[in-house]
Amino acid sequence: MQAVELIRKKRDGGDLSTAEIEWLVDQYTRELIPDYQMSAWLMAVYWRGMHARETSDLTLAMAHSGEELHVRETISPVVDKHSTGGVGDKVTLAVAPLVAACGVAVGKMTGRGLGHTGGTVDKLESISGFRSALSRAEFMDILIQHQIVLAGQSSHLAPADGKMYALRDVTGTVESIPLIAASIMSKKLAIGASHLLLDVKVGSGAFMKNVGQAWELAQTMVDIGRLAGLHTVAAITSMDQPLGRAVGNALEMAEAIAILRGQGPEDVSELCHHEAAELLVMTGAADTVSEAKKRVEQAISTGAALTKLAEVIQAQGGDPRQIEQTELLPRAPVRSMLLAPCSGYIARIEAEQVGLASMRLGAGRFKKGEQIDHRTGFILQAKVGDYCRAGEPLVEIHARSESEAASVSESLLACYSWSEAPVTPGPLIHGTIRP
Amino acid sequence: MQAVELIRKKRDGGDLSTAEIEWLVDQYTRELIPDYQMSAWLMAVYWRGMHARETSDLTLAMAHSGEELHVRETISPVVDKHSTGGVGDKVTLAVAPLVAACGVAVGKMTGRGLGHTGGTVDKLESISGFRSALSRAEFMDILIQHQIVLAGQSSHLAPADGKMYALRDVTGTVESIPLIAASIMSKKLAIGASHLLLDVKVGSGAFMKNVGQAWELAQTMVDIGRLAGLHTVAAITSMDQPLGRAVGNALEMAEAIAILRGQGPEDVSELCHHEAAELLVMTGAADTVSEAKKRVEQAISTGAALTKLAEVIQAQGGDPRQIEQTELLPRAPVRSMLLAPCSGYIARIEAEQVGLASMRLGAGRFKKGEQIDHRTGFILQAKVGDYCRAGEPLVEIHARSESEAASVSESLLACYSWSEAPVTPGPLIHGTIRP
Repeated sequence: MQAVELIRKKRDGGDLSTAEIEWLVDQYTRELIPDYQMSAWLMAVYWRGMHARETSDLTLAMAHSGEELHVRETISPVVDKHSTGGVGDKVTLAVAPLVAACGVAVGKMTGRGLGHTGGTVDKLESISGFRSALSRAEFMDILIQHQIVLAGQSSHLAPADGKMYALRDVTGTVESIPLIAASIMSKKLAIGASHLLLDVKVGSGAFMKNVGQAWELAQTMVDIGRLAGLHTVAAITSMDQPLGRAVGNALEMAEAIAILRGQGPEDVSELCHHEAAELLVMTGAADTVSEAKKRVEQAISTGAALTKLAEVIQAQGGDPRQIEQTELLPRAPVRSMLLAPCSGYIARIEAEQVGLASMRLGAGRFKKGEQIDHRTGFILQAKVGDYCRAGEPLVEIHARSESEAASVSESLLACYSWSEAPVTPGPLIHGTIRP
Repeated sequence: MQAVELIRKKRDGGDLSTAEIEWLVDQYTRELIPDYQMSAWLMAVYWRGMHARETSDLTLAMAHSGEELHVRETISPVVDKHSTGGVGDKVTLAVAPLVAACGVAVGKMTGRGLGHTGGTVDKLESISGFRSALSRAEFMDILIQHQIVLAGQSSHLAPADGKMYALRDVTGTVESIPLIAASIMSKKLAIGASHLLLDVKVGSGAFMKNVGQAWELAQTMVDIGRLAGLHTVAAITSMDQPLGRAVGNALEMAEAIAILRGQGPEDVSELCHHEAAELLVMTGAADTVSEAKKRVEQAISTGAALTKLAEVIQAQGGDPRQIEQTELLPRAPVRSMLLAPCSGYIARIEAEQVGLASMRLGAGRFKKGEQIDHRTGFILQAKVGDYCRAGEPLVEIHARSESEAASVSESLLACYSWSEAPVTPGPLIHGTIRP
């Protein structure tokens, strides 16, 4: 086989065989195919696309390119959960302990934030002592002992994906549905859970800006799961405004704890209950959605879910007192209230712009590897559909200094659109794709 | 400017500005843009194409990437001539001295053969002592003194083209009309003749397999010439069977000499007269084609053209006696006659396959840099439309050994298609594009 032949085949709209795709990924991972051939192939894929079988083959080849945990061979069912990323998305922090408290194991690796979207690991690391970098043995030990583990993404898993993603980033080949789907799913397959729930975000604050793209990505990932033997369900959910009220790492951690106490904002709480229930039904732990939701509510009312979160935090070296007393979480020195500049119904809150503003406060990364400040961010005082009078609180800004707080005020105000007539927010959950 | 932005722009079907294209080529030549970004851009160009202005900008940027000879600033008019390559194509060897003998200077750099198509430099180097590697000063001195110079392609000219071509070769981005046109024309612009005649070959033995592609390539190059201030004419000519009768370096050199003596095969002689006449009319050295053809015939009948060839060969270190006495040219030790296997009219002679067979005798290169044998090749005894009886001579094979001669016999016979009914060969010249 020759790399240039596989480039030409895809360039001309042909389908690559399983053997051809396996060879390409294997040779590229072993640096026997240079970046300049892979980038030309990726651009040809961007142009011509890939069929379901090719996409599944690519995903499996990437999954097989490094270490594989085969988690479900040790414990089953064991679930995984992935969000394509948004602003204020602390759903994993609540759903994982909710599901584990209902008796279904959760083995999850999770990424860091980049750009305007946050990362679950960053939020967890707002807790003192919390360790996300776990060895394979630690990951399995904690999972077996506590039925829950929340680790950082291991670079030993699916190294082909890491290498290809870095290349796509600089060669204009990121925004390809099969390539995005393969990138996400390869890491999931390398972990080897038995069930996977995907939360595909769509809207101004998400990677997918329109619903059609989101459905296509979700369907592509569900298809990969089906072909690769991983029971996968995808929910398509809204990311037109920040989810919940908190944006920023410690602030979102506190909001996740509030959700587990039954005191979270309505939208994000609803989504957490929905996703946890879906996972219970998927795994057979509940027969119906209504039964599942009842169990989720019990896990909250009995405090079992919050205890589970404290348990996994402690198992990973974190201070569980910060879960029980959120005032012990790190707090920014400056809190300043942005007031509504006019009266009216809030028509839009541009999620991406809110995320970018929080980055400028130190809560996110402009470049990989940058340090972040876990304390900073926002608490939205009103959301889409709420009526707000001029001079009433709009956003509480948590910042390192008065000047940093002031520096984002104008761009925060620009995130808001106002309406004189009442506004009904769009649906939070657009739909669900099951295999 | 960022390379990834220019990749995305072209990927999305946008037009790059002159400044963007100049930046891209400059940065790539200076190795500030890596191959993996350029190959992704080239694949995007393969997909989306380029408009005339973009193609001209790319060509000029490539031409400006290294040394430039500005030949026409020293001597004007001065013509250049380029063939896209075929089998048995010795036209440049005859046209250059014909035009120079008619008083119009010819400053030409010419390439080596690769694959089934031959290269003019290889044919010239069948003459003892001939030097194709000339310094810039030598090139200009010989041109001024003899009104003709036939040098090898200098790697100092249009280095961006050399670098991009090597990358295209291994990334499936060769077969793009704007990229092919820019590659050819950038080297021509770097030499800086005042007039350029292009011979775009089309047919089974050419790079362009269909007439539509050939017209598109020819038109693209004429447009580049117009936008870049180089008077360019393109002839689209047939390469369905080998041109003339000789295939192989010394054998083609001898046939070129026969053409200059007025004793060449009809097809290739007609093409040489046509191209030489076109150049005389283009440069204003003749007012009409018929006047030009008359001057070409005079250059042959007086021996002036042959003398001019001997003159340039001598100026470049070659032995001019080999021009006057072609039996002094290197000769293969074995000459073996392949006989017609049946009686009939010859319907087709697959030019590409004849070229590949000559490569296997050592006359061509499978890889860049390989040594070739100047002595080997074929003399076709009959061409398309000729009637041949079973057992009559079909091809004289010039080989290094009896076994090598025997080894190509079967594939040579497979090049021939036979017809019981008379066959009329297609037109040799499909048309001409003028600016």
